[in-house]
Amino acid sequence: MSRDAERLPDEFALIAEIFAPLATDPNAFNLTDDAAIIASRPGKDLVITADMLIAGVHFFADDAADLIARKLLRVNLSDLAGKGAVPHGYLLTVALPRDVGMQWMRDFAKGLAQDQKQFGISLLGGDTTATAGPMTFSITAMGWADEGKMLRRSGAQPGDGIYVTGDIGDSALGLEVRRNGPIPNIPQEDADYLLDRYLLPRPRILLAPWLAGLAHGAIDISDGLAADLGHVCKASSLGARVMAGDVPLSQAARGALAQGSISLTQLICGGDDYELLLAIPNTAVVELKKRCAQLDIPITRIGEFTHSGEIVFTGPQGEKLEINSVGYRHF
Amino acid sequence: MSRDAERLPDEFALIAEIFAPLATDPNAFNLTDDAAIIASRPGKDLVITADMLIAGVHFFADDAADLIARKLLRVNLSDLAGKGAVPHGYLLTVALPRDVGMQWMRDFAKGLAQDQKQFGISLLGGDTTATAGPMTFSITAMGWADEGKMLRRSGAQPGDGIYVTGDIGDSALGLEVRRNGPIPNIPQEDADYLLDRYLLPRPRILLAPWLAGLAHGAIDISDGLAADLGHVCKASSLGARVMAGDVPLSQAARGALAQGSISLTQLICGGDDYELLLAIPNTAVVELKKRCAQLDIPITRIGEFTHSGEIVFTGPQGEKLEINSVGYRHF
Repeated sequence: MSRDAERLPDEFALIAEIFAPLATDPNAFNLTDDAAIIASRPGKDLVITADMLIAGVHFFADDAADLIARKLLRVNLSDLAGKGAVPHGYLLTVALPRDVGMQWMRDFAKGLAQDQKQFGISLLGGDTTATAGPMTFSITAMGWADEGKMLRRSGAQPGDGIYVTGDIGDSALGLEVRRNGPIPNIPQEDADYLLDRYLLPRPRILLAPWLAGLAHGAIDISDGLAADLGHVCKASSLGARVMAGDVPLSQAARGALAQGSISLTQLICGGDDYELLLAIPNTAVVELKKRCAQLDIPITRIGEFTHSGEIVFTGPQGEKLEINSVGYRHF
Repeated sequence: MSRDAERLPDEFALIAEIFAPLATDPNAFNLTDDAAIIASRPGKDLVITADMLIAGVHFFADDAADLIARKLLRVNLSDLAGKGAVPHGYLLTVALPRDVGMQWMRDFAKGLAQDQKQFGISLLGGDTTATAGPMTFSITAMGWADEGKMLRRSGAQPGDGIYVTGDIGDSALGLEVRRNGPIPNIPQEDADYLLDRYLLPRPRILLAPWLAGLAHGAIDISDGLAADLGHVCKASSLGARVMAGDVPLSQAARGALAQGSISLTQLICGGDDYELLLAIPNTAVVELKKRCAQLDIPITRIGEFTHSGEIVFTGPQGEKLEINSVGYRHF
């Protein structure tokens, strides 16, 4: 992070300059009142999810402040998208090391403002404290679903197709670029593309309002395709058959795969995709494809849910892939 | 904190053993689904507030785990009480240093369970990560208020009486006991009482459902009586006259004051009281006192709001006290 010269003012001045302008919802009372209101919406459920993100674990402390801000938000918007919920707003608590200054905070707020506008949400509250440890953020994000219609991990049924949005594995490669610079034999523009995919997720919230009518179950892919498919299978008491060669890859990822810079297994096990994995009954496939085409969201069938308790990944040559990913482990 | 021998298991096992049993609300789906639901309640607003608490800043890392847990919850329940909101539930994100083990987590969960039962709330979600820094918690707490009736800081009117619940300043003394042990010439039982008052706030949530009908404005006293009265005056564009000799003090605090261990100004400026400060119109005083008597909540008039922009504290001998507290400053 930039160690800028302008020290932070007291907490009240910090809230007034940095955070209050982000509280565009009048029910957040300009953050002057310790609490915000969310008015009930008859026929709707508020869907609520929380994440904690820590420098050195979930992001690099010296990533650009506006990108850190936008990733914070987008990771949580992706959670909401996976539930079929339309974003409403968020609360943000922030623990700042002493060397974070005002310029960093202004850049951070700029990133939040940009994405708030894009996704139609408001900051609703939070807290700001100093810490002797790494920069730490906690976000609580809220969205709306029709009453009783929030998508669950547990709703998948045998025979449902396994569909994923967008491309898988770019972020695993982008993280590699972030850590070690350009990948050998991969064009710079591909490396840039992959890095961008890692730094700035594209949560599929445009699809969220339609999902309840299309999918039996859903999850956003944050722990990696293999791990998150595992979560859905476990919650739904099902197995799955995946044709790994059908997993959608970007041109950049295909290039890296062809170069041997990464294996298909690594792409499938890498995290931070923030695409959606959906359990789609055959009767909804036509409608799903039509909707995705309208929204310009790529959608790909990669396999199906099965009665068996086992998850089988079959490689491009018909070989069984050994996938043993449980996603990132914190402890 | 205790550095116990039993290491934490992976995140999923930790959630299953420690946190899932706390998710008593069926709409939290046993914490297996990344998100919880709060069903809309026609005619009600959801009141939502967030706090971040860090070891070494907001609590001592070696406080008992169950007391840390209960204070976390109670600080936020006090925020809700100050808004006249009836508690519904909370989300909790947790960053744990590597030396926290399972026994600590079990004690922590025991504290949460005890207070959840007492206050009728459920854990609704959260996140658990490791940190290289101090133990850090972020809580988002939610409660219900009648539509449009959430109490604000900004509602106080000139002539309203300033009322406070309970006693003021015990926590400032309790913090002193926590830091430096027994206060000279103060009986051990008084020191124990003060320490308990610091470690375990008593949020006034029983009064919350009645406040909208009684008070013009309210705040929970967390930054100190002087600072929080300042917040209400600023938000309401008012001044205040306080008879400092009328500020309610416990027997233990009166003893410490008589001994010269602390000044009246320090008691008024100390934080962590978690009592309520209310702006009460004369027409509501009888009803307020009746309600507080029914609920066994001490209530005391300490002054009144005025047109002037100034806040004047008059001491027991009629002298003007110099109060210049802005509460705790993080930066």
